[in-house]
Amino acid sequence: MYRDRIRLPSLLDKVMSAAEAAALIQDGMTVGMSGFTRAGEAKAVPHALAERAKVTPLKISLMTGASLGNDLDKKLTEAGVLSRRMPFQVDSTLRKAINAGEVMFIDQHLSETVEQLRNQQLKLPDIAVIEAVAITEQGHIVPTTSVGNSASFAIFAKHVIVEINLAHNPNLEGLHDIYIPTYRPTRTPVPLVKVDDRIGSTAIPIPPEKIVAIVVTHQPDSPSTVLPPDTDTQAIADHLIGFFKQEVKAGRMTNKLGPLQAGIGTIANSVMCGLIDSPFEDLTMYSEVLQDSTFDLIDAGKLSFASGSSITLSSRRNADVFGNLERYKDKLVLRPQEISNHPEVVRRLGIIGINTALEFDIYGNVNSTHVCGTRMMNGIGGSGDFARNAHLAIFVTKSIAKGGAISSVVPMVSHVDHTEHDVDILVTEVGLADLRGLAPRERARVIIDNCVHPDYRQALNSYFETACAAGGHTPHILRDALSWHMNLEETGRMIAV
Amino acid sequence: MYRDRIRLPSLLDKVMSAAEAAALIQDGMTVGMSGFTRAGEAKAVPHALAERAKVTPLKISLMTGASLGNDLDKKLTEAGVLSRRMPFQVDSTLRKAINAGEVMFIDQHLSETVEQLRNQQLKLPDIAVIEAVAITEQGHIVPTTSVGNSASFAIFAKHVIVEINLAHNPNLEGLHDIYIPTYRPTRTPVPLVKVDDRIGSTAIPIPPEKIVAIVVTHQPDSPSTVLPPDTDTQAIADHLIGFFKQEVKAGRMTNKLGPLQAGIGTIANSVMCGLIDSPFEDLTMYSEVLQDSTFDLIDAGKLSFASGSSITLSSRRNADVFGNLERYKDKLVLRPQEISNHPEVVRRLGIIGINTALEFDIYGNVNSTHVCGTRMMNGIGGSGDFARNAHLAIFVTKSIAKGGAISSVVPMVSHVDHTEHDVDILVTEVGLADLRGLAPRERARVIIDNCVHPDYRQALNSYFETACAAGGHTPHILRDALSWHMNLEETGRMIAV
Repeated sequence: MYRDRIRLPSLLDKVMSAAEAAALIQDGMTVGMSGFTRAGEAKAVPHALAERAKVTPLKISLMTGASLGNDLDKKLTEAGVLSRRMPFQVDSTLRKAINAGEVMFIDQHLSETVEQLRNQQLKLPDIAVIEAVAITEQGHIVPTTSVGNSASFAIFAKHVIVEINLAHNPNLEGLHDIYIPTYRPTRTPVPLVKVDDRIGSTAIPIPPEKIVAIVVTHQPDSPSTVLPPDTDTQAIADHLIGFFKQEVKAGRMTNKLGPLQAGIGTIANSVMCGLIDSPFEDLTMYSEVLQDSTFDLIDAGKLSFASGSSITLSSRRNADVFGNLERYKDKLVLRPQEISNHPEVVRRLGIIGINTALEFDIYGNVNSTHVCGTRMMNGIGGSGDFARNAHLAIFVTKSIAKGGAISSVVPMVSHVDHTEHDVDILVTEVGLADLRGLAPRERARVIIDNCVHPDYRQALNSYFETACAAGGHTPHILRDALSWHMNLEETGRMIAV
Repeated sequence: MYRDRIRLPSLLDKVMSAAEAAALIQDGMTVGMSGFTRAGEAKAVPHALAERAKVTPLKISLMTGASLGNDLDKKLTEAGVLSRRMPFQVDSTLRKAINAGEVMFIDQHLSETVEQLRNQQLKLPDIAVIEAVAITEQGHIVPTTSVGNSASFAIFAKHVIVEINLAHNPNLEGLHDIYIPTYRPTRTPVPLVKVDDRIGSTAIPIPPEKIVAIVVTHQPDSPSTVLPPDTDTQAIADHLIGFFKQEVKAGRMTNKLGPLQAGIGTIANSVMCGLIDSPFEDLTMYSEVLQDSTFDLIDAGKLSFASGSSITLSSRRNADVFGNLERYKDKLVLRPQEISNHPEVVRRLGIIGINTALEFDIYGNVNSTHVCGTRMMNGIGGSGDFARNAHLAIFVTKSIAKGGAISSVVPMVSHVDHTEHDVDILVTEVGLADLRGLAPRERARVIIDNCVHPDYRQALNSYFETACAAGGHTPHILRDALSWHMNLEETGRMIAV
């Protein structure tokens, strides 16, 4: 059954059980695993590693593309396997361990991890564990539903474990475009000038002798946990579509808009769904994760091409897309996250980047990661890669959370992931703030007037007016700047409303 | 005398007085002027404009490359000319007006201003005022000691005023390399792969009929205000050189290091001076401003090529360099700031970016701009362009200021310009913190142990320990996080020591 997936016969004798393969991973190793936004992660070997660690404790430093599915970060955390973890995660058990200081988490721009490996600024992986649909006649690895950092991990690691997952459609082969930047000082431009350009190979080129184990699995990716649109997310989408219409009318974009990027999650996915009923046509995506909305837009005839680093779908969409992949295959490409998120390419193509904020402040600084400045949620992910160089850096969020106890717009963010310099447009269900070309005092006016929930508007106006009276380019009253967060920690509400 | 500088004869009848040329600038206009780090700014027309405004008030929105010399921002501010100003300034009078909310200042990454103009996200200049050494036979403009945003301003503006400055050595012609990125969606890679590549033209190509006035001047650039190295800056340089030696030993760099970028100012200049007595050789620069240290390094045989967007020298160095330009000319190129600071090029070349921090916090977030989170100093300048994509993002500062009343290392920065994600190395005279691959709690340990002034170490340790006990990925005690800044505002000292 799996033999046709391993097309280099000399590798057939490397097939072994997950436990045997996991035994190659030793205490203290740095391990690079496939997996990006819960898509295409190696499944059996990390599970076997966690099982083994319950009996014989060991610690590793784990790098991935981004988040893992199938509760692997949970299992590895519970088994005490993780000493270090980078560059992103979304697991609640791991999150607790990170916030307790038990796992050292390195929260990185997703385009940068392999650049730092290439420069030996991070310890190279001793071993890579990569999920594949096939190994080619040359011994090259064909990834599954994500590319992430898999290619560079396999190239940098001394040894590679491949998981051939029979649950994936073998027709995924051909979908990937593996391009690795050349070394400095003779590095050349990334030769990608259109979203549908193919600039690399369809498999990860490594010497086959590096493959030390092959594990055959039959386990699907976890379905995405994205929620359907609601009235608030629909309102956010409507504000954004109205804004895009103005941009087209002003001659700053055509009806094709620019290549779209949408962060993972319910709000960004809903905004993309909103484009189905928009007047825009022949849209393209140059994003990291392709979600349900990507395929909804293709089906609606709105989206002509989508470039990403992974495909993460709901249960509803999964069988439909992967069972009928030939319907979509000429409209898709999956790239290494270094390329899907590359600042050079993002700036060249003029991406419209739509990402979710945890909170933002009246001057347009965005917190994507830290609750009350301290507790990590998931990580910055690719939002910084896109926002810094985007044609339009857009951040979306609902104006309130926890039934109104929390305002997403605050006097001063408790943690900054995206500075005022990098944020063009802010949107809540209340409205949209266009910050381009505005000084801080002007930004505050536009943000308070357009994005803030009515229950919090007066308090923010009052803060802003008091601060302006005290002066400064970016007026703040330091004693009160973080008081909303302190109140939240102490009373469960940001302000009494 | 000036006639050989205007080589297109049909333009000779455009020569007029500065007052006549300034009369072309009308109330409410957006004006783009040459000038970058007090080098190559238009001198006579803005002065005449300020004089006129004393009699007949008018307001303009002023864009430049970066800072202006010859007190022009002061004069324009005092005359009430400036309603808006971008993207950078260093003038104390203008700074007061900005902090009073009288001038709307838009503090931008220096690579981004013309990108936003190109996309019509900022209002295009009605008129550009550009200092030149000559106008060519084709009517193209040859800049002087800076390129900055001059090329794009001249291209985008409806009309152009040229100041031919006879005080500049005409031999500056040939030094510039004017490359303008193509428009999206057909933009191609910036074809620059080595610091000394020439990819454009030596003059700014515009239709000569756009030149509506030519003013002949004879006024030098202001000398730089950079102070000589002192024991603290020497210690910073020594720490950094020690670190570079380790990097070479570890095989992460060669003895040539990578292309160097140094922010403007005394500390960065001193660090570069420190390289004169280092073992490194055949160094190159890919920076925005070329300061005294650049030429000291060339003279010492250490630096083989320097690319920048401007040359800003002390009085001591000025006559020597510009009087003997032929000695340096084959080792220099001046580019538009969009290219000197371009994220695509910075990432490709693997720049070592050395910039000055106002303060940084125990987790490695850097404030480059705002005193106590509120009052603007100068602006972010190019520091973000370089830090985000650099091979090594280095920030330097003295560990204390105001005789010890201020610690440059604080529990939480009062304003964030560079997030923890973008900062690799921090250096004070006390020592160097290498943050690569570290989680926040590890970064705090390294920063407190290595960079903090002894008078503040115990207090920071105490803050950090208390915060860690309360938990979190980036532990903070919100009630105390900004208390050092509050103390400073209220008592003139951050803590009682």
